[in-house]
Amino acid sequence: MSVLIVGSVALDSVKTPIEEHSDLLGGSASYASVSASFFSRVNLVGIVGTDFPQAHLDYFGSRGVDLRGLQVVEGKTFRWSGEYMWDLNTRETRSVELNVFEHFTPLLPEGYETARIVLLANIAPSLQAHVLDQAKAPGFVIADTMDLWINIARGDLESLLKRVDMLILNDSEARQFTGETSLIKAGKKIIGMGPRFVAVKKGEHGCLLFSETEFFSCPAYPLEDIHDPTGAGDTFAGGLAGYLASRVEGEVGFADLRRAVVWGSVMASFNVEAFSLERLRTLVQPEIEARFGEFRALANFDC
Amino acid sequence: MSVLIVGSVALDSVKTPIEEHSDLLGGSASYASVSASFFSRVNLVGIVGTDFPQAHLDYFGSRGVDLRGLQVVEGKTFRWSGEYMWDLNTRETRSVELNVFEHFTPLLPEGYETARIVLLANIAPSLQAHVLDQAKAPGFVIADTMDLWINIARGDLESLLKRVDMLILNDSEARQFTGETSLIKAGKKIIGMGPRFVAVKKGEHGCLLFSETEFFSCPAYPLEDIHDPTGAGDTFAGGLAGYLASRVEGEVGFADLRRAVVWGSVMASFNVEAFSLERLRTLVQPEIEARFGEFRALANFDC
Repeated sequence: MSVLIVGSVALDSVKTPIEEHSDLLGGSASYASVSASFFSRVNLVGIVGTDFPQAHLDYFGSRGVDLRGLQVVEGKTFRWSGEYMWDLNTRETRSVELNVFEHFTPLLPEGYETARIVLLANIAPSLQAHVLDQAKAPGFVIADTMDLWINIARGDLESLLKRVDMLILNDSEARQFTGETSLIKAGKKIIGMGPRFVAVKKGEHGCLLFSETEFFSCPAYPLEDIHDPTGAGDTFAGGLAGYLASRVEGEVGFADLRRAVVWGSVMASFNVEAFSLERLRTLVQPEIEARFGEFRALANFDC
Repeated sequence: MSVLIVGSVALDSVKTPIEEHSDLLGGSASYASVSASFFSRVNLVGIVGTDFPQAHLDYFGSRGVDLRGLQVVEGKTFRWSGEYMWDLNTRETRSVELNVFEHFTPLLPEGYETARIVLLANIAPSLQAHVLDQAKAPGFVIADTMDLWINIARGDLESLLKRVDMLILNDSEARQFTGETSLIKAGKKIIGMGPRFVAVKKGEHGCLLFSETEFFSCPAYPLEDIHDPTGAGDTFAGGLAGYLASRVEGEVGFADLRRAVVWGSVMASFNVEAFSLERLRTLVQPEIEARFGEFRALANFDC
């Protein structure tokens, strides 16, 4: 089974207190697609300029990512530049160049529209909705979002929420979106806005999963050194969606999502070990399975 | 089996954004002793003034707390006054009156010195050490501490650490104490300073437990409303120590501590549901057992 992923494909410049790199492969759809590709085939929807390196396209191809939905148009690829502060938790966006993204209208090639699992990775909610308009009765729709859209496109986001099964956002965004300081209250309030499930990412503190009546707390993997947090959330969402596409049949329930959140966390924990998608390039299946086992031990007290 | 607990017994005034109460039963030894009393008998070491209400002494007695180690001396009881900010996470101490505590020399009555489990609840590390000097070959010593002692008595605290099996502190204190932003690095650094085990409390994000080679992540109970966080850490430590005293025989290992940390978290999750020790006054054993079961489900993804 394939998972349909729409989002940004970008060239990033990232500065941490220790390192600085430019022209890295980045963007929400890039991270999510490669992450999902460890579980299932991926149908990617996005846009790049003619300056986008062929090597990156080849890498997507090598991961079994279907690129028929990736528009390559005259102009420059979307570029993002950011800097992480001393604790690697605070990030400042230094610059954003939309470039070809400014006039992006996502279009689903033939075959894409029947996807059962749809991941609307982080882009403007209006674009996420446009993809949803073209999908035919998807079984499970996941939307990721960020503070920017909560600030400048709240109406679009609220409309979108009525059409998705699951929202993913981080803790500060959940507080910002709902005005609740308690993440428990925030999670429940979002459930009241449409999605049946919400995942609240908490970085070094793991992740919370909510349904109207159920709750799951996913621990964080105890990494001593984080090299680059960029794309952790996208990698999480991609792993989660890829797992659902490949290993869950029929209706997605809370028990499936508990495991999906752990698989997503496993993928994110690898991703932050190196810049850009570098760690995923060398990652092999046995490492993923082994770390899933480690997650099981992290929070187990029946031993 | 009894647990030996030394710490402060106080009269607190607490203000939250919603409520304000004064002359509440408080102090690290009060919370820890009552919490531990749900698991084992408690031998309390502390000091109060002659103004300390008989009703509080009667309450300790009703919980099976041995008060022979509680000195009642002419003068006023230790008083603390604090205020919680809007998110209930930030606390400001408004005033501290040491009163009788200023000249406190803890003394162990006969029978106390053979305790197998010793909890040095939050007081000055020099006083904690003084209790340890009198204890005869305790099997497992737990020390709790706070930012104040890291700031003004770091040398005493470092000396104490060489003599205890486990240190409990919160996340900001662990960062402050070690100068590490990563809690994983901070935990390992503290292990290098003496204790075989460290518990790092993270409030709404649960708790981390470290040994030199093992790691456990305890989830937080998803409470929507916290009424008063005062004493949560002391209640955690008391539940943990009480559990070890009553239900673990022989040498305490990491698997025992995983469960102990969960029992401590169960007790703390009740304590914050009301001001002072009010919630513990009405708490009954089946509620505790039921919540332990809920903790098991919180982080379980093998369902």
